[in-house]
Amino acid sequence: MNDNKNLDESDLQSISEIELINRITKSFKTKNDSTILDIGDDAAILKFEKNKLAISQDILVEGVHFDLSYVPLKHLGYKSVVVNISDIISMNIKPSHILVSIAVSNRFKVKALEELYEGIRLACSYYNVDLIGGDTTSSNKGLMISVTCIGNTENNKITQRNGVKEDDLLVVSGDLGAAYMGLQILEREKKVFEVNPNSQPDLSNYTYCIQRQLKPEARIDIINLLEELKITPTSMIDISDGLSTEINHLSNSSGFSFHIYEDKIPISEETKKACDEFKLDHSVAYLNGGEDYEVLFTVSKRHEKKISNCEQLTIIGSSVKKKDDNCMITSLGQKININSSGWDSFN
Amino acid sequence: MNDNKNLDESDLQSISEIELINRITKSFKTKNDSTILDIGDDAAILKFEKNKLAISQDILVEGVHFDLSYVPLKHLGYKSVVVNISDIISMNIKPSHILVSIAVSNRFKVKALEELYEGIRLACSYYNVDLIGGDTTSSNKGLMISVTCIGNTENNKITQRNGVKEDDLLVVSGDLGAAYMGLQILEREKKVFEVNPNSQPDLSNYTYCIQRQLKPEARIDIINLLEELKITPTSMIDISDGLSTEINHLSNSSGFSFHIYEDKIPISEETKKACDEFKLDHSVAYLNGGEDYEVLFTVSKRHEKKISNCEQLTIIGSSVKKKDDNCMITSLGQKININSSGWDSFN
Repeated sequence: MNDNKNLDESDLQSISEIELINRITKSFKTKNDSTILDIGDDAAILKFEKNKLAISQDILVEGVHFDLSYVPLKHLGYKSVVVNISDIISMNIKPSHILVSIAVSNRFKVKALEELYEGIRLACSYYNVDLIGGDTTSSNKGLMISVTCIGNTENNKITQRNGVKEDDLLVVSGDLGAAYMGLQILEREKKVFEVNPNSQPDLSNYTYCIQRQLKPEARIDIINLLEELKITPTSMIDISDGLSTEINHLSNSSGFSFHIYEDKIPISEETKKACDEFKLDHSVAYLNGGEDYEVLFTVSKRHEKKISNCEQLTIIGSSVKKKDDNCMITSLGQKININSSGWDSFN
Repeated sequence: MNDNKNLDESDLQSISEIELINRITKSFKTKNDSTILDIGDDAAILKFEKNKLAISQDILVEGVHFDLSYVPLKHLGYKSVVVNISDIISMNIKPSHILVSIAVSNRFKVKALEELYEGIRLACSYYNVDLIGGDTTSSNKGLMISVTCIGNTENNKITQRNGVKEDDLLVVSGDLGAAYMGLQILEREKKVFEVNPNSQPDLSNYTYCIQRQLKPEARIDIINLLEELKITPTSMIDISDGLSTEINHLSNSSGFSFHIYEDKIPISEETKKACDEFKLDHSVAYLNGGEDYEVLFTVSKRHEKKISNCEQLTIIGSSVKKKDDNCMITSLGQKININSSGWDSFN
């Protein structure tokens, strides 16, 4: 009926909801045997051989969680999936299915939504996750994306926040603060562009930070690595809202406090350079900056050697009795209280 | 730390995300043995004895799906749950768990969100559904609610849209069009109020229609009834977007068409009266008006007697070979083509 190419530039009013759904989901292929029924009915049907599953839901709002003036829609689609997958991974569980609902204003073109779903498809493909449903509706203003992610487990290795034991090692994957500095750089370039629309941003000095902000990955490789090493963490969380916030979450859930060591915290040279250029203390980036989607977990001390041998993992501290506050010990031996001051949705 | 009473009238900025979540979820109690871990970690954990589950997700947007000038927040919370539960029920499956994410602007008071969650809690309690997670974040404007609902099944009675057989009976529960007329009445009163803010709306003639709009129920009783009657429908769908749209969905999924009979369609006297007052043909309400959340299903003809004896069920037509269009046969014997002209998100 409609010519596909012309529809690309069409407004959403020119296409029915069904046509739109067919268009944006036609290139999705399911991969998991557990997917009995995917998109197209009132609900999806899943069948799990083993009977424990994890489920989480996030919502991303234009102007709050992302700025379309510098975030390409394909990256946004990819990131929306990654953010949610990361919640399942931080239970030590592999994600298998997602549902994606969007509310979108009529100012968007059909092609724009196809870009968004191309990013979603790429993430599904990379993480072996099946898109099984969702909802597509209009909004008065802007774009909202809500993602539900499901994972299932064949074993009892689920890691909750409350499993911390006394004297456990506190371990973090990758490095911290880069996504936050990527955001600062993109925000600065946006301001430059607003003043001079002919300016060409030179982002070549900060490719790592910008990539960490625009196209983060969830650390499914760490889940696989821990499985290989036969290590089950006592607790785990992903770093979406900043290290200090996540440490406080683990502390509140488990009843233990944590001491971390400033000189142990992994931070890339590029992130340090960006901090210096922005005249920000490095700790602002690694303690308070969010969106790195690294995993933070506790393990028994007996795994110290195995963990130390992993390039992707860094022991940054340990759990202590609750009577002590959560604190960071500086290279000069000073104790700094770590209050949660990462991302808070309403402040 | 904070005085509870004073916080009621506080803006959302004055409370942390964690405090807010604790406040709005503290009165929720889980009831299902399958709920291993609910709110408070990165993901919820569920364990099902039987291994098939249904999952659906919806998104509701202020100004598109609801108007807070006449929808009380408690009703909105209740309805948000019902709308999603209805999708699971229309697979012939009982709902067991929900996740609710909200994005909300700072103009809302803490007390307003508590009202919303009180409605959610009431629906959870009525339908024996556990709230197990979600996300709470800010928006630049308005309120969005995204709900994911999960149900699990102990048998193979799942009813998909594609199961229709030739010559099946088409059956609807309850009556149609009342929710749509309730919306017309509320919209009219809103306009009157805008002109004269001192006017007191007299809604007493239309309590049924207004209740159907503001506080719909999902037909879990029909699922139970069909189980008692030992009837497994060949297909099922819920009527959220209007009878004609839902018939078209069943038709497109199954490859059969449907003939329905005008004089069989259940419509309440109050709905008819409202149509007459608004000078609307009754068919606008029952064919195109949505949000009744009744179920529409097909069954084999051999169940005709059992179905006819159920006060809550009406046989409105039957399935025919696809070469015929979907049509409504009037009391004068005329065939009217039923094109989908119910709710479409983008038009």
